[in-house]
Amino acid sequence: MEHTPTGDPAYHAAVVDLLGVLAYGELTAFIRMAVDSDLAPTLSLKSAMAGLAHAEYVQYTQLVEHMRARGIDPEAAMAPFVVPFASYHERTRPRGWIEGLVKAFVGDGIAKDFYREMSAFVDDDTRAVMGHALDDAGQADFVVGVVRDTLKTDRTAAGRLALWGRRLLGEALSQAQAVAVERDAMSALLVGGGVDLAEVGQMFTRLTDNHQKRMALMGLSA
Amino acid sequence: MEHTPTGDPAYHAAVVDLLGVLAYGELTAFIRMAVDSDLAPTLSLKSAMAGLAHAEYVQYTQLVEHMRARGIDPEAAMAPFVVPFASYHERTRPRGWIEGLVKAFVGDGIAKDFYREMSAFVDDDTRAVMGHALDDAGQADFVVGVVRDTLKTDRTAAGRLALWGRRLLGEALSQAQAVAVERDAMSALLVGGGVDLAEVGQMFTRLTDNHQKRMALMGLSA
Repeated sequence: MEHTPTGDPAYHAAVVDLLGVLAYGELTAFIRMAVDSDLAPTLSLKSAMAGLAHAEYVQYTQLVEHMRARGIDPEAAMAPFVVPFASYHERTRPRGWIEGLVKAFVGDGIAKDFYREMSAFVDDDTRAVMGHALDDAGQADFVVGVVRDTLKTDRTAAGRLALWGRRLLGEALSQAQAVAVERDAMSALLVGGGVDLAEVGQMFTRLTDNHQKRMALMGLSA
Repeated sequence: MEHTPTGDPAYHAAVVDLLGVLAYGELTAFIRMAVDSDLAPTLSLKSAMAGLAHAEYVQYTQLVEHMRARGIDPEAAMAPFVVPFASYHERTRPRGWIEGLVKAFVGDGIAKDFYREMSAFVDDDTRAVMGHALDDAGQADFVVGVVRDTLKTDRTAAGRLALWGRRLLGEALSQAQAVAVERDAMSALLVGGGVDLAEVGQMFTRLTDNHQKRMALMGLSA
């Protein structure tokens, strides 16, 4: 994969966008997960969900430090993404603990898959900090067991949560689409990286495939 | 100050209570601050408030580790305090960003003052971990400036926030009172430590004095 030289202003703008969307995504994920941890039925689950939220915050601060060290204003970088993330979270407000849990697992998974795809088009330094922010210590693994247990005892849950998963994917892709239209530089990164439309299509296929795998892991159809 | 020997079951029960209430207080503070950070009018303030929440979570995990290392079940220790904290937070739901900010500063201050008083009655090991959890790196200092700026531009804020501060103190003391009645061992720690009613009265005077100082720091009457 070719890398546009870091001196190129268009490339710089794309990287600022990418770090901004990643950082703000982590910050809002932190807030939403903390909010949703309050719905947990037990102290142990509340603590586990709070731990997920905490991991997002730590990754957020790492990205902010990285941006500051490179003379990027983190707030300016994040600002364009306030509205899309607010829309996403507004449209995917969980109606209960299990929906919040599935959202944490599925939403985070989609976001991280997307950033992993994008990290192929950036310089090594940026890819390293993105990789760090995308590092998953398996803290979300408890979600799988909790959802599977719920499916055993609640017969209506499977259908409801399968729909919920589809909704989460749809809303995430629709916000990503809106961001792509709005943020030329970030989209140009794909095109500048020699990516044609067919390859963008394949990227979306990979994203939905991974989504399906995550849903299957929880015992849900996608 | 005398310490009841650590082998004494009543003393052990009191320490379990103390660590449980402290840990659960930090966990709920983490959640409430994260929730309230979502009300912040700027990214910079959202980030600062998220940082306060994060600090509570880190302290929470330290307490949980300490309990586990000493064979104390953290969930069992926290369980008796779920209802009082839920009541406190339910009764002090901020109606906006500034109320959330004042609550973070004032509520956390009252709680930490109380735990500092209690730490005089415990063994060195417990006092050390409590001190660690009570350590304030000055992260809440930004609150003072934000509230003072608000008072300059919003003429109705001073009266409203003074009332709000009084309400926070009242609700905190009333929940503390309910806990004291319910948790004999913890109350016995004071009495067992040779504390008479006059001294308990002085402790409450110190708590309200400190509250007054914190309010004054923000430019508010208590």
